[in-house]
Formats: sequence, C-alpha cells, structure tokens
Amino acid sequence: MTDSPEYLEKRAFYDSLLTIYGRKPVLEALEDLSLPVHKLHLATSNRRDHLIARLEQLATERRIEIAHWDRKGLSRISKNARQDQGVALDLALPHYGTAERFLQESQAKYELLALDGITNPQNLGMIIRSACAGGIDGILLPRKGCAQIDPLVIKASTGAVFKTRILRCDSLAATLEQFRASGAEIFGLSSHAEDTLSAINSDQPKVFVLGNETRGVGEAVARQCSRLVRIPMRNNVESLNVAVTAALISFRHQL
Amino acid sequence: MTDSPEYLEKRAFYDSLLTIYGRKPVLEALEDLSLPVHKLHLATSNRRDHLIARLEQLATERRIEIAHWDRKGLSRISKNARQDQGVALDLALPHYGTAERFLQESQAKYELLALDGITNPQNLGMIIRSACAGGIDGILLPRKGCAQIDPLVIKASTGAVFKTRILRCDSLAATLEQFRASGAEIFGLSSHAEDTLSAINSDQPKVFVLGNETRGVGEAVARQCSRLVRIPMRNNVESLNVAVTAALISFRHQL
Repeated sequence: MTDSPEYLEKRAFYDSLLTIYGRKPVLEALEDLSLPVHKLHLATSNRRDHLIARLEQLATERRIEIAHWDRKGLSRISKNARQDQGVALDLALPHYGTAERFLQESQAKYELLALDGITNPQNLGMIIRSACAGGIDGILLPRKGCAQIDPLVIKASTGAVFKTRILRCDSLAATLEQFRASGAEIFGLSSHAEDTLSAINSDQPKVFVLGNETRGVGEAVARQCSRLVRIPMRNNVESLNVAVTAALISFRHQL
Repeated sequence: MTDSPEYLEKRAFYDSLLTIYGRKPVLEALEDLSLPVHKLHLATSNRRDHLIARLEQLATERRIEIAHWDRKGLSRISKNARQDQGVALDLALPHYGTAERFLQESQAKYELLALDGITNPQNLGMIIRSACAGGIDGILLPRKGCAQIDPLVIKASTGAVFKTRILRCDSLAATLEQFRASGAEIFGLSSHAEDTLSAINSDQPKVFVLGNETRGVGEAVARQCSRLVRIPMRNNVESLNVAVTAALISFRHQL
C-alpha cells in the first residue's frame, strides 16, 4: 500500500464504482446517457437473445468495455447470483464514495444522514429521494445491516441515488466516532428524546442517525450520539415512517 | 327526509361508521378496547373454527351486537366479497364523517389535505399517519378514485386512521367549491408551480390538494384551486412521494 497521488486517484475511482445487476436495470442504465458507465459484465452462460444483443450493441455504441465471465465469476461481481440474471454493470458515480474520503475532504459545514439497520429497500430508496430533494449533503450507508443499493432501491429513489453523495463505511459506530473527532455533532433520532429537532441551534457539522424501522438506533451507534432528538408528533402518533423522518430533517430549513 | 335533531344525530352516527373486513383486521380491532365497535357481521357460511369462536366471544364480552348474513348479504356490507373472508366489523369512529358536516361545524382556522386520485393503499396509509402526526385538521377523501380505508390502509397508517378526521365526499371538485365559498383557500400541489409552500402567508382556512402519484391533480379539481404551490426541491429531483409531501405540509409550522 502506498499513498502516492496515483494510488489515491485510482482508489477513489474504484470507491466510486457501483455495480448494479439484472437485465432491466442494466438496460435502463445503459440507455441513460447521463450515467457514466465503466464496464458491462455478461455471463457466458447467457442465451444470446434479443436483450443480450441489445446490451452488447449499446455498450459498443457507448465504447464501454464488455467482460465475459462464467456463471461463478459473474456472481462474484454482482454479489447476487439469484437475481443478477447473468448481467451486471459498473457505474462510475462521482457522488458514490467512502465516509473516509468525505472526512478527508470535508468542508466546515455539512449535514449528513447516517442509516443504522434500514433493511427495507423501498424505505432506503425513499430516504435517498427525499434527502436528495431536501439538500442533505450525503448519506452514510454501512456495508452491513442495511439494504444496499440494488435495482429495487434505485427504482424507489426514482434515480436520486445517482445524484446523492452516498458514503459507504464498514462499522457505522466507528465511523461516527471519526466524525465526532473531526468536530461533527451526532444526533440520534429517537421518539423518546426530550429535545425536538427544532431545539438544535449549533453551527457545527451535523450527522443525523436514523435507526431500524422497528428497533430504532442500535446500542453501539447510540453511544456515539452526542444528543438524542425527536420529531414533535401530535395526536399520540408514536412513530413516523423512516423516509418521512429523513424528509423532515432534510427539508427543515426550507419550509 | 327531515332535518329534525333526531334525524341529524342518527345520520351523523351512520356517517361515522367505518366498516372493516377480513379475519385478522377484525380480530385486532375487537381486541383493541380503545376502538368503539358498533356491530360484528358474520357470514352463516363460515366454518365455525377457532377464530370465529374467538370473534364471537370477544363481541359477547364487549356487548357488541352480532349479525348473521348469507354470503351475499355479508358482501353487501363489506363491499369486498373477495377479501372479507366472511367477516366484517362496523367501527363507530368519532373522527370519521363527511365533508358536508365538517363545513357545517367548521371553525375559523383549519388546514386540511384533500386527496385526488391517490390509489396506492400504502401511500394513503402513510399520508394519514404523517398528516395526523403533523397535526393536520382533517383529510378530504372522495368515495371514488382514491384507495379507501381498508385493512391494508389501516395497517400502513399504524392505527392513525382511527385518530384522524377523515372527511368523505362524493365529488372532490364540488366539495372544494363549497369550501372555497365558505372562505377557505384551496392550494393545489404541483411541481410546476411558481410559488413555494413557504410563500403562503394568509390567515384563511386552507385546503392542500394532493394529486395522483403520476398524473398529479386532475383538471376539474385544479380549476377549484385558488393557487398552485410547490415544495422547493434541490439537486434536480423532480418529485417527492405523495406521503412525504403530505408530511412536509403538515409539519411545516413545527420544524
């Protein structure tokens, strides 16, 4: 390992790769000229039907490299042998990267969402869509314990996943600790909190942690929160959908 | 027809009845002692299994009338022969009524949501949940062209449907005309509007019209809107989920 500029640049590029899979999502991505595509992966076991021919044609027209793999090789790339349908595509997304990198570059003022155990792909997609529209600066998405960016999530986000800074990390608790050390304030959303969202008036960078749909924020992650806050709710409603919570946080300066 | 006080009272009671159906939703409703139940309806064709016995027992304990019907009679009550499973339940909800009645009683200041062509039950449930938590004063729900309150919607609302003033009406356009005549301002939500939500600064009662998930507000309804407004969106996101929009409207004074 070396930290030479070439190495860092290369690594940043690979960190920005998002691999999607499945025939329809890959076709749609190839047809969308605004998406920067890196490489098309095809299983050699694919029957060469109309759709595969169309994928190859689109890739050739767009001068995108095509790699052929046996079934096992392809599933190592898609990481989802059951649903990849023998097709995967690497997108090189400028807004897709790592929490680590964001911290290295980060500006004085930002607001992020951090997702802890958000397992429902519909919710993840809707969170990304709402947060992006509300102007959040990025979404911390751990590699484990959360739904991952897959065709369902892309669809539910109505494409917002391609415009939002998605920051991947391994352990969310450890990453939040780094953010805290760098001067960010970490707010855990909890319906049991005393303070409401509107009580926040600091100028520090902020990370809002959204927990699992039923269990809330996990213990290790909760320990990294400087403060718990809640959305003020009327009529004894006990909780909100997590994507609605994400929207209320992201839009709160603009309503 | 007469307008005697007895008649009006009786009519208000029947307007407040919400009939739910299906074995699990009916069982859950009977087990929830906070729900005012009017009558249990059973099909005579039901096999008298453990669950039916449990429903009868709960109704007897709660001194709730049980009516028995042939299959056809029961489906007239449930209005959903395919999904009622031979079981229906009338809830007498104090917050469930008609737009007409709301107008007769209405106070000087209120904010309502009006739903035009919201066909997805998940979205309807989530709208009710978010609007209720945000403190909206009621939801105008036309009898046609929208999803209706059914077990799926009740579940998606996480029970908020029982705490929210649901105002039914026949034609939404005609009803909005009446609201306008009574002094309310009607705002149509549209992503193409010039003004944003935050530009609203009138003291009049307000009705916010949310349109169909893909087509937006219909023409006849749009004609009744005094003004179109939009939620300000960043990053070129084109639209928000309709339940997220409902939440942003309902919570906008509290964030």
